Amino acid sequence: MPHPVPVLPEGVDPAWLPSAAFRPLGSRRTLIRGSGPLVETVHGEVAEACARFGGRVDRDAAPEPYDLVLELTGDDSSEAFGYERVDGRTTVTATGQRGLLYGFFHVVRLGEEAFGGDCQRVLHEPALGLRMVNHWDNVAVHPVMGQVERGYAGGSLFWADGRARGEFERVRAYGRLLAACGVNAVSVNNVNVHETEARLLTDRIGEVADIAGAFRPYGIRTHLSVTFAAPIVLDGLETADPLDERVREWWAGATARVYEAIPDFGGFVVKADSEGQPGPFAYGRTHADGANMLAAALEPHGGTVHWRAFVYDHRQDWRDRTTDRARAAYDHFLPLDGAFAANAVLQVKHGPMDFQVREPVSPLISAMSHSTLAVELQATQEYTGQQRHVCWLGPMWSEVLRFAADQEGPAFEELVAVSNVGDDPFWTGHPLAQANLYTFGRLAWQPDADPVVILDEWIGLTFGAGPAAGLHAVLDGSWRTYEKYTAPLGVGFMVQPGHHYGPSVDGYEYSPWGTYHFADRDGIGVDRSVASGTGYAGQYAKPWAEIYESPDTCPDELLLFFHHVPYGHVLKSGKTVIQHIYDTHFEGVAEVEEAARVWESLAGLVTPARHQRVTELFVEQLRCAREWRDQINSYFLRKSGVPDERGRVIY
Amino acid sequence: MPHPVPVLPEGVDPAWLPSAAFRPLGSRRTLIRGSGPLVETVHGEVAEACARFGGRVDRDAAPEPYDLVLELTGDDSSEAFGYERVDGRTTVTATGQRGLLYGFFHVVRLGEEAFGGDCQRVLHEPALGLRMVNHWDNVAVHPVMGQVERGYAGGSLFWADGRARGEFERVRAYGRLLAACGVNAVSVNNVNVHETEARLLTDRIGEVADIAGAFRPYGIRTHLSVTFAAPIVLDGLETADPLDERVREWWAGATARVYEAIPDFGGFVVKADSEGQPGPFAYGRTHADGANMLAAALEPHGGTVHWRAFVYDHRQDWRDRTTDRARAAYDHFLPLDGAFAANAVLQVKHGPMDFQVREPVSPLISAMSHSTLAVELQATQEYTGQQRHVCWLGPMWSEVLRFAADQEGPAFEELVAVSNVGDDPFWTGHPLAQANLYTFGRLAWQPDADPVVILDEWIGLTFGAGPAAGLHAVLDGSWRTYEKYTAPLGVGFMVQPGHHYGPSVDGYEYSPWGTYHFADRDGIGVDRSVASGTGYAGQYAKPWAEIYESPDTCPDELLLFFHHVPYGHVLKSGKTVIQHIYDTHFEGVAEVEEAARVWESLAGLVTPARHQRVTELFVEQLRCAREWRDQINSYFLRKSGVPDERGRVIY
Repeated sequence: MPHPVPVLPEGVDPAWLPSAAFRPLGSRRTLIRGSGPLVETVHGEVAEACARFGGRVDRDAAPEPYDLVLELTGDDSSEAFGYERVDGRTTVTATGQRGLLYGFFHVVRLGEEAFGGDCQRVLHEPALGLRMVNHWDNVAVHPVMGQVERGYAGGSLFWADGRARGEFERVRAYGRLLAACGVNAVSVNNVNVHETEARLLTDRIGEVADIAGAFRPYGIRTHLSVTFAAPIVLDGLETADPLDERVREWWAGATARVYEAIPDFGGFVVKADSEGQPGPFAYGRTHADGANMLAAALEPHGGTVHWRAFVYDHRQDWRDRTTDRARAAYDHFLPLDGAFAANAVLQVKHGPMDFQVREPVSPLISAMSHSTLAVELQATQEYTGQQRHVCWLGPMWSEVLRFAADQEGPAFEELVAVSNVGDDPFWTGHPLAQANLYTFGRLAWQPDADPVVILDEWIGLTFGAGPAAGLHAVLDGSWRTYEKYTAPLGVGFMVQPGHHYGPSVDGYEYSPWGTYHFADRDGIGVDRSVASGTGYAGQYAKPWAEIYESPDTCPDELLLFFHHVPYGHVLKSGKTVIQHIYDTHFEGVAEVEEAARVWESLAGLVTPARHQRVTELFVEQLRCAREWRDQINSYFLRKSGVPDERGRVIY
Repeated sequence: MPHPVPVLPEGVDPAWLPSAAFRPLGSRRTLIRGSGPLVETVHGEVAEACARFGGRVDRDAAPEPYDLVLELTGDDSSEAFGYERVDGRTTVTATGQRGLLYGFFHVVRLGEEAFGGDCQRVLHEPALGLRMVNHWDNVAVHPVMGQVERGYAGGSLFWADGRARGEFERVRAYGRLLAACGVNAVSVNNVNVHETEARLLTDRIGEVADIAGAFRPYGIRTHLSVTFAAPIVLDGLETADPLDERVREWWAGATARVYEAIPDFGGFVVKADSEGQPGPFAYGRTHADGANMLAAALEPHGGTVHWRAFVYDHRQDWRDRTTDRARAAYDHFLPLDGAFAANAVLQVKHGPMDFQVREPVSPLISAMSHSTLAVELQATQEYTGQQRHVCWLGPMWSEVLRFAADQEGPAFEELVAVSNVGDDPFWTGHPLAQANLYTFGRLAWQPDADPVVILDEWIGLTFGAGPAAGLHAVLDGSWRTYEKYTAPLGVGFMVQPGHHYGPSVDGYEYSPWGTYHFADRDGIGVDRSVASGTGYAGQYAKPWAEIYESPDTCPDELLLFFHHVPYGHVLKSGKTVIQHIYDTHFEGVAEVEEAARVWESLAGLVTPARHQRVTELFVEQLRCAREWRDQINSYFLRKSGVPDERGRVIY
């Protein structure tokens, strides 16, 4: 029986799967061969498209000619598919059901192109085996963080005020969008696991199973964030020591019960010994001990533990300039390289700090050559405009993924994004923030893809051809625009403490969080060189250790991350640091003004609902960008005393 | 029937009315003459003391000699009393019941001194007719501000989580403490009147009446904060226009019903057109129109409206240096001088900003010579350590009250303090913060009193003679100590936004609140001169307008409030501004360290509960004072580049 396509609730945006995207396929004849639940999903998709656009779909070949054949030729776990077009017929073959599903969405993405000309057989397969979205969704509303930690798209799709939402049609629709861009795993709760959330592992596992059931038809496995202290919190054990036999037995039992409820359960996500979460340090054990204990519990069932490497001292003394948060992940984890079990994946944030608009790539990624790594990106725009600002992160992510690869491919095995999705009608709050989620999925499939091609693919699917040029103009440079009007030259932070929205140059300067810029009347930046600084630059392999070591070779955009320099320091661009600050801040605001104008011009070319929402958000983005410009420029004019060369107004 | 003395709940601190304070009186023979409810209160007090210490109290004179005669000779509303000691007999006479009550507490305060030597008759009467405490207590817990706005002493004595607490014995005990220091009025809810609190005026007035009943035996009248929008909010009127006849009738009716419930009701407190509260501006009316409308409703019943003058633009643009929040109260209200009804009292904060550790006295106070004024002080330590730091405010308040007076007496008629009391066992969180409430009451009675005498009076009553010298040392200079380690030279703020605890030099620098220091690499301060600044200095009468106008004559402690000067500017002390900043911050911390040592030495001389609480709080005060010192010094070293003359560690 074909699996029906989920019906979107009234008013919910179809995102990159509008009906129109299915017209080329839906108006033709398709033959589907093979059997299995995901084949039924594909059948349901094609049938729905044909019902709408007059085509036809068969499961047993009639003598007539088909425009498209989707054929499952085996039943393995492969996600690859072959694609060819010969003699007017397009054929997708796969040895696994997921491959067939991805092949189907490939045809959707190609649109009319899938049915014109010829194409020799190409094997498409994902470069990374796991492409996961992490939801930082709380079950109970957290008094400070709310329903979704760092969420800017309304409530959670899964949870509301302590309970499961039970709106599985919407979850299915979400799974469909994820599958269409290649995502194959979702974790359904916040890595900060509070009291209510802890119970999802045991007596509330049925609620997780329901979500897993909604995702399953689109090839998505469900993962769960758990607290390392679960044996204590949930069952009153005296310890959570990972080498204690009772603890190991407790986890083995709890995990077995999870698999009884969810046979294809993906595994656990763990934030341990980080920002107040419990972990193995309390028992004098290493993070490998902790991760491997959970890996052992998961191993018999084919599950994986994702162990986050976001471990640092968040109660640092700002007076102490020798401690460097940027060093922390490498210092903690490199000694453990090779000590992790095969199904223990170390999940590493892409940068050494915390999802700033510009950071170097974490040196840990290339260094952990004997471990399985997942690189963690942040689709939710915590530090990049909180889905009130247009900020398409594709180019940033692409730079990260290319840096962390060599000729043999990526230095990591998996890619994870913190989700930017909530129960907002546009899924992501800002309608254009959908592009980030789509881009993430596509880059996870092919990390060396050109992000701009992905962007145009998303625009075409979501908006059609009419407004494409305008949307491209609004989105393509938006990350660099955001960088221009916020913290300069890789120095990071300068945001309002707590919620992280809007400027506060000294907001984190005298805090315990390890996030400083050290601006004084003479200069700014953090000396992370080996010769005179914290030594962080030395965590890189050559040539990067040498490139970053000297201000003469360090790229401009990371200069203040690696070096403390005078305001008069001349960049490679030929500008002084201080003039660069002034210029970029004026430019950044001008670019937002221009983007808002372009958006305005698209009024008749996008749906009124989308146009209105984005128009409203541009008002806020402009207000906020001007606030950034003026606060940053005033701060540095007051501190440096150096006037703007061009005599513009600085307050 | 004598009114029984309230019994303190288990564990609640007796504050300045411990049993020991009643020994001199309780061991002697007292005759009480006169009748009335407050006479019964006095009788109950004396009877309780005699029961404990073996004395005797009569209402009809026996032939024997009395040590003390307390005699009511009339039944007017006077609060004055005569005191004399002749031929071994102490006599207190009063023409009003409240006078007798205050005369009784005068005898308590004098202790043994009341029964030794001779003393000619002295008439004691309060310089100010209304001595009120304002509680910023919410009925419902506010999501941001909590049960008590800017409260640092636990919950409210009156309200808990939306309901009346109903713990009237504690309220009575509180009223007794207030009467013993001379307070005669209390407002029982926050001036920010939210939805739940608005209803106290109408269907929940019975709960206010219960509180009024508990306060009445100690001569305290109860007041209520109301919302100007009450006719709209509570009864669906379309307008709250003060000149609209329906609105006037609504208030007249509502007020009449209040007096049915509480015949001696004191009146309304109103915060209008301030920080988001509704007010007459919405209808194009003046604040006099608004206040007079409420005054008219109260007048037939003998009530008063307290209309707060805290009106300013809290959505100011930090870029705009011409707008000056300090000017706002004067600019708004001076044109209305003479326009307020006789029972409309303008309640003016003592400084032009907001209860900073150092501000000039509001020029409005001396300027409004044709209006009835209440000066508002803040006993709750919002900006002065939040009852985690020892900061006895007596000297500050005394300076304010002396400034706002001439040879004919104060330029104001009433004194109000925002309460620092909650349901904490020590009443005020920090046990030593009780001194602020006591000092307020005594200064309200006699604004030109020496605050140090009041401090020693409080210490003697509360702690007895043993630890008196140590307590004096800990408290006497504590306000100047706090000033030393926080924002320098009158510049104010530099606190963490929102909660206002701990340092953040730029925390309010780019905000809409009108609270700036304008520090740059060359200098700091706000130019409020007439010649080159905002003109605020010109709001003062001579000689102060001239004194404040020039940095040469402006007192050091207010220099940065009135002038922007270079860091090298030499103060009258002979130090440069920058060296003053460094020196005071090192000194301030050293003084806290010394105070903590003195406190430690009192271990055997105060109750263990008090000693432990204060010891714990000193740990926090020291931590926080060091944080202030280091952040302020680092900030200004980085900005000015001027090294400390004495080469101390600045991070």
